[in-house]
Amino acid sequence: MQRMKVDFNYAMKAFVECGLDDTALEKYREKARMGLSRLLRLVDEDKAGFVNLPGQDTSAMKKFAKEMSGKFNDLILIGIGGSSLGMETLCGALLPYGHNARSFSQRGAFPRVWVADNVDPAKISAILNECEPEDTFICVITKSGSTVETAANFNVIYEWLDEGAKEPKKHICTITDPEKGTLREISEKEGFPVFPIPDNVGGRFSVLSPVGLLPAALLGIDIDKLLEGAASVTRDKYEKIITLSSIYMYFMENGKNINVLMPYSSRLSSFADWYCQLWGESLGKRTDTDGNIVMFGSTPVKAVGVIDQHSQVQLFKEGPEDKVVTFIEVEKHEKDKKIMAEYDDYGYLEGHSLGELCNIELLTTEAALKNTGKPSVKISVDSLDEYTLGSLFMLWQYVVPVIGLACDIDPFDQPGVEEGKNYAYGLLGKSGYEDMKQKFEEIFTKRDDFIV
Amino acid sequence: MQRMKVDFNYAMKAFVECGLDDTALEKYREKARMGLSRLLRLVDEDKAGFVNLPGQDTSAMKKFAKEMSGKFNDLILIGIGGSSLGMETLCGALLPYGHNARSFSQRGAFPRVWVADNVDPAKISAILNECEPEDTFICVITKSGSTVETAANFNVIYEWLDEGAKEPKKHICTITDPEKGTLREISEKEGFPVFPIPDNVGGRFSVLSPVGLLPAALLGIDIDKLLEGAASVTRDKYEKIITLSSIYMYFMENGKNINVLMPYSSRLSSFADWYCQLWGESLGKRTDTDGNIVMFGSTPVKAVGVIDQHSQVQLFKEGPEDKVVTFIEVEKHEKDKKIMAEYDDYGYLEGHSLGELCNIELLTTEAALKNTGKPSVKISVDSLDEYTLGSLFMLWQYVVPVIGLACDIDPFDQPGVEEGKNYAYGLLGKSGYEDMKQKFEEIFTKRDDFIV
Repeated sequence: MQRMKVDFNYAMKAFVECGLDDTALEKYREKARMGLSRLLRLVDEDKAGFVNLPGQDTSAMKKFAKEMSGKFNDLILIGIGGSSLGMETLCGALLPYGHNARSFSQRGAFPRVWVADNVDPAKISAILNECEPEDTFICVITKSGSTVETAANFNVIYEWLDEGAKEPKKHICTITDPEKGTLREISEKEGFPVFPIPDNVGGRFSVLSPVGLLPAALLGIDIDKLLEGAASVTRDKYEKIITLSSIYMYFMENGKNINVLMPYSSRLSSFADWYCQLWGESLGKRTDTDGNIVMFGSTPVKAVGVIDQHSQVQLFKEGPEDKVVTFIEVEKHEKDKKIMAEYDDYGYLEGHSLGELCNIELLTTEAALKNTGKPSVKISVDSLDEYTLGSLFMLWQYVVPVIGLACDIDPFDQPGVEEGKNYAYGLLGKSGYEDMKQKFEEIFTKRDDFIV
Repeated sequence: MQRMKVDFNYAMKAFVECGLDDTALEKYREKARMGLSRLLRLVDEDKAGFVNLPGQDTSAMKKFAKEMSGKFNDLILIGIGGSSLGMETLCGALLPYGHNARSFSQRGAFPRVWVADNVDPAKISAILNECEPEDTFICVITKSGSTVETAANFNVIYEWLDEGAKEPKKHICTITDPEKGTLREISEKEGFPVFPIPDNVGGRFSVLSPVGLLPAALLGIDIDKLLEGAASVTRDKYEKIITLSSIYMYFMENGKNINVLMPYSSRLSSFADWYCQLWGESLGKRTDTDGNIVMFGSTPVKAVGVIDQHSQVQLFKEGPEDKVVTFIEVEKHEKDKKIMAEYDDYGYLEGHSLGELCNIELLTTEAALKNTGKPSVKISVDSLDEYTLGSLFMLWQYVVPVIGLACDIDPFDQPGVEEGKNYAYGLLGKSGYEDMKQKFEEIFTKRDDFIV
């Protein structure tokens, strides 16, 4: 059964003037095929571990989740970026909206879930104010073990746990490198249960590793079905991967430096954030693999249908020709609601449903963009569940590196985040970073007449 | 006391190669002054009502909020776009994180708040599943009275209220046009309390009208202080407005088609969404005021610090030179938390606080961007409260129209949203839109070989 479709009609010149003709499509498909074969070579060399995650053994996570079941009212996940966006996507898509507001029994004895990502005191204070240490389990997630925000939040939350829980160390598990790093050492010393992030899986490609799966299992999400959906993105779907990659490369090389992802579903709002990280951090690079300065990368933009029809769509439709929009359609919305028109003026709504209206508006937005010559692509899933979400994750995890590798860009590194981090270590007084503090002070000069 | 500062050092050529020199700054300032004088003329002609909102009488809203106080456990706000983003910003910035998860007493007898914006059945079902009709108050917000998503959600939620509440009509108030429209008629017929949106205040400029203020008052937010902060953006702050407008115009006209807003505070996450609507819908226009086709507008992008340092900052720093980043800094974070380093490896964090770390990371990201020649601007507020939030709203509500008017763009219309809406009416069978259905069907053709 085909649960996912890619419709690229309105990326084609046959429908939209700036789109691909058959020659361009074949040319960029060829390029995408090269990117895919480079990716598959990296997989063979064991350097792109995300591809193999669907085959992992999930029994330890499921066993742990079963042991924990019903024991805690709150789960605090400490992690940031690649260690938080994936599980926020899972929660947003698969838990009922307003999960944390529901009572314990309505949650099926699954905990409330809080994400301590930002070092924002208001957010962290509010979380700690709301939870009871004795009734809270925390999960610390950082591959390197040294992520500064995660370290800071872990220390603050540990202190809170230590003050309020009888056996604080029984309230902690960690997800980190399988062999090395600060958090690995601490976990082994303290006896925290620890789940490994495979060495060849980077943060933004880790949602289908324990980083996403363990929290998901603790929240009652069917992780095997997620992996089953992810596994479906193999040979029979290479056609989708190659098609999407070739279209995005064509538009990137033809003046469109903005890539909008616009799911028509509030449940996929966080998915668009996850996509922004995957795209931006993988493709935004100063140098190519030969060291030439290329300042590569188009900018991912999040939009949510139908909400952004009342916001960004005005710009998408009437503004500059600098974007390609990718819609995600959920063909059948769960728990759909029929509309009974209470007042005559709303009579035209009678008998339609909310989900139907949502999908009609997607079609009419597609049409309106097409009609002003703005290109779009549509990915449709028949419904939104663990399986299709798993396949959406895996689809994009292929598409982005295929584009990078086809364009001689390393999609798996992130050299640009180091500089700011090292200055921060310097300013915080971390030993070994004294020269970074000095360098920061040399760079960070300001003039008062440029402040109003 | 100066509670807000604008630092534009790293937008200047003195620090960043692509930035403004003194001549460019003066040229664009001149242009911005012209935009401002055009705006002030519109204000005189009573065509830009948002400027006068700080002077409005709030007593009816405060009285209503007082009467309602403690009477309901849940408040459902039905509205979308300009009728929802503003109050989501207010809630995100001024209510404690996780407000809805807190008990009635911890909320100070203020209700939980749910936003029925999207026509997403999963979201609406989850809200209705969690609330009790008898214990819920709803507020329907649409200026025209005919917004299709708001009409649909209102009808669905009204039916739910009608089935479960003894006197359903006592559970409803509306915010709409002062004189005309469907919702105005219904409200008068049914006796719903109704609060007016001034005729000369458009949706995306309405956060400081009852659209934002009434829900805020119902949630215990000090609306007078909000207005006081907004009022502070007058003559003494024109310098800030002109500076920001001139810088953004310079970069728009010099190859930067992306404007990033990056507050370093999770509380301002929704503020960035609000900004994206204001910027995108006001400036994204096909024609200028003389009717020339210009396809104007740069694209607003939301980022949240420090979270996006682990995501989009890689692209901002190393990718193409197509962006200007505006940071928002909160100088003093409330409820800050000192870090006690539990483990030696985290010893360098000892004695620092979360808020300090957050702000250090902002400085180091500024420095890292500067060091690769990427321009940025920084808006600082001394702390985040009703007053400074009100001034941030008003600052941007000036800056965006000043840019539009200086560039001969109408910042107050949104012609591009009509087409898709009319097709949708056609497809839903609304009388008078039969030709739109036909036109849609002519446009919306597809080829099967472009679907994989």
